[in-house]
Amino acid sequence: MRIVVALGGNALLKRGEPLTAQAQRANIKIAAQALAKIAVDNELIITHGNGPQVGLLALQGNAYKPKELYPLDVLGAETEGMIGYMIEQEMGNLLPSERPIVTLLTMVEVDSKDPAFSHPAKFIGPVYDEDEAQKIAKENNWFIKPDGDKWRRVVPSPLPKRIFEIRPIRWLLEKNTIVIASGGGGIPTMFDEAHHLQGVEAVIDKDLSSELLARELNADLYIMATDAAAVFLDWNTPKQRGIKQVNPEDLAKHTFAEGSMGPKVSAACQFAQSTGKTAAIGSLEDLEAIVKGLAGTHVNKQAVGMTCY
Amino acid sequence: MRIVVALGGNALLKRGEPLTAQAQRANIKIAAQALAKIAVDNELIITHGNGPQVGLLALQGNAYKPKELYPLDVLGAETEGMIGYMIEQEMGNLLPSERPIVTLLTMVEVDSKDPAFSHPAKFIGPVYDEDEAQKIAKENNWFIKPDGDKWRRVVPSPLPKRIFEIRPIRWLLEKNTIVIASGGGGIPTMFDEAHHLQGVEAVIDKDLSSELLARELNADLYIMATDAAAVFLDWNTPKQRGIKQVNPEDLAKHTFAEGSMGPKVSAACQFAQSTGKTAAIGSLEDLEAIVKGLAGTHVNKQAVGMTCY
Repeated sequence: MRIVVALGGNALLKRGEPLTAQAQRANIKIAAQALAKIAVDNELIITHGNGPQVGLLALQGNAYKPKELYPLDVLGAETEGMIGYMIEQEMGNLLPSERPIVTLLTMVEVDSKDPAFSHPAKFIGPVYDEDEAQKIAKENNWFIKPDGDKWRRVVPSPLPKRIFEIRPIRWLLEKNTIVIASGGGGIPTMFDEAHHLQGVEAVIDKDLSSELLARELNADLYIMATDAAAVFLDWNTPKQRGIKQVNPEDLAKHTFAEGSMGPKVSAACQFAQSTGKTAAIGSLEDLEAIVKGLAGTHVNKQAVGMTCY
Repeated sequence: MRIVVALGGNALLKRGEPLTAQAQRANIKIAAQALAKIAVDNELIITHGNGPQVGLLALQGNAYKPKELYPLDVLGAETEGMIGYMIEQEMGNLLPSERPIVTLLTMVEVDSKDPAFSHPAKFIGPVYDEDEAQKIAKENNWFIKPDGDKWRRVVPSPLPKRIFEIRPIRWLLEKNTIVIASGGGGIPTMFDEAHHLQGVEAVIDKDLSSELLARELNADLYIMATDAAAVFLDWNTPKQRGIKQVNPEDLAKHTFAEGSMGPKVSAACQFAQSTGKTAAIGSLEDLEAIVKGLAGTHVNKQAVGMTCY
C-alpha cells in the first residue's frame, strides 16, 4: 500500500514540554518506532506540523534583531529542515540501510484571494497570559487570539492549491524511498502579477496540505496521527463513543472543534469522497493497528453509515 | 554534461552586508540568473555554504533562551531549508515550469577520530572586536580565532566520508531534476558504538563535501563559484596572474590561503586526480563562460603543465 502519515504536533512535542532539541528528538524517536513498523511492507510518505517550531524561530529572531526578523515562509523552510532531519535520522536508525529515506523541501501554492488572509486563525508559537500577549502583539504587529485560557499568536492559514515538488516525490516513491515532505503544511507561496512565485506570510494547515499530497500521489491510505485514539461523538459526555468506520457523508453531518478535530475530519472527508480510498484518524501509537483497520476512525465511501467502538 | 556547482558564501551574502532575508534573496536572485543559463543544456546539482547563516541561527537561539540553544547539526539542517528554499524558488522563476527542481536535505558521515575535533578551525557567524569576542566566547563556551583584523567563532570541520542520500540524488538527476543538496557541507553525523547515527557539533567544508558529491555522482564538471575570477599565483604582487588550465599535480605544488582558496584548490585537485574529469574555480558571474572553458581556472589531468591568462 501507499500510505501518507501526517504527524500531529503532539508527535513532535507533548503539550507543556519545553521546545528543546532534546525534547523534540525524544518524541520523534517514539514516532519513528511506530512509523518504521509500517514502513517495512508499504510505501511511506511522512508529513508533519510545525506550529510550535515556526513560532519558536520567530521568537528567536525577535530576541536577536527584531527589525531583521525573517518572514514566515523562510522560517517555515527552516522548520522543514529542522524537523525533517530529526525524523529522517531516527527512521534511518530503525530501518535497514538499503531503504532510502529523504526529506524534500516542499512549496505549496495558495490563492492571493483566499479569505484566510483577512482572518488570521492559525495558532503558532507559545501561549501567553493575556496582558503579556497584548504587549508582545503590539510590539511585533501580531494578531493574537485566546487558545483555551491563554492567548497565542495567530497567522493566516490559506488553503493549499498545488504542491510544486509532486513529480519528484512520485519518482522517489517508485524507488521505494521513504519521503518526508510538506512539513508544516508546506512553504506557502503565491504568484505575483508577473507570474513570479514568492513566499507568503502564512502557515498552511498540515492536515489539508497532506490530504492534497495524498490525493495527488494516489495514496491508498491517508492517516492523520494524533493523540486521540479516534474521532469521538459526544466528546466529554456520558454518551461519548469513538467512531470505527464511517461514510464521509455521514461524518460531515457532525461538527467538531475548529482548532483541533474539525480540520482533520474535513480533510478525511475530502480525501475519502474524492478518491474512494480510506482516510484514518487515530493515535500515533496505534499506527500499525490503524493500517490493519483495527484501530482509529476509518472514513470510506464504501462504509455503510457509521459504526462505533 | 552533469555539473555540480558549489556556491561560495559570497553568492548568498556580500561581505559586510547585514544577514537579512532581503539581502540573501537579492544575492540569490543574481546567482539564480547565472545558474539558470547553464541549467538549460545540462544536468545540474547546486550546493552552497552556510557559515554566516548557521552562525546567525546560533545567535538568535542564544538571544532567546541560551540554555535551550540547538546543536549545530540541527541548525545546519535549518539552514539547508532556509537557503535551499530561496534558491529553489528563484531558479523556478527563471526556468520553464516543466523543469523539476528540488531541495534535498543531506546528511554526511564524518569520522569520530577526525583530528578536526580537537582543532576547531571553521569560521561561523559574524566578526567581533577582540574584547567582545572574548566575552561572548566565555559566556557560550565557544572557541574563537582571529579572522583578518577581527575575531570570530570557530567550530570543528571534519572531513566528509559519505553522503547518505546519494541514491535518491542520482534518481532525481536521471529525471533531469535540478537538485539542491549538501547545503552547508551537509549535516554532520556519525555512528555511535551501537551503530546509531547521530548529529555532531561541527560544520563540514562545503567545497570538500561538494567534491565528494560530484565524485559520487560521476559529474563531468565540478565548479566552485566564488568572487575570484580564477586561482591566482603571486596574488597581490606585480607578478600576479590567473591560472587558466593546470594539471592537479602542478597546482598542488603551490600553497594558497588556508581559509579561502586553499580548500578550494585541494578539492579541485582531489576531484581532477581521482576522476580524470575537470574541476573549475571561478567567478559566479562567469558561470556560463566557465562551462564553455573560457573563464576560471580549470584543473584537469590532461592539462600539460600550467597555462595562465
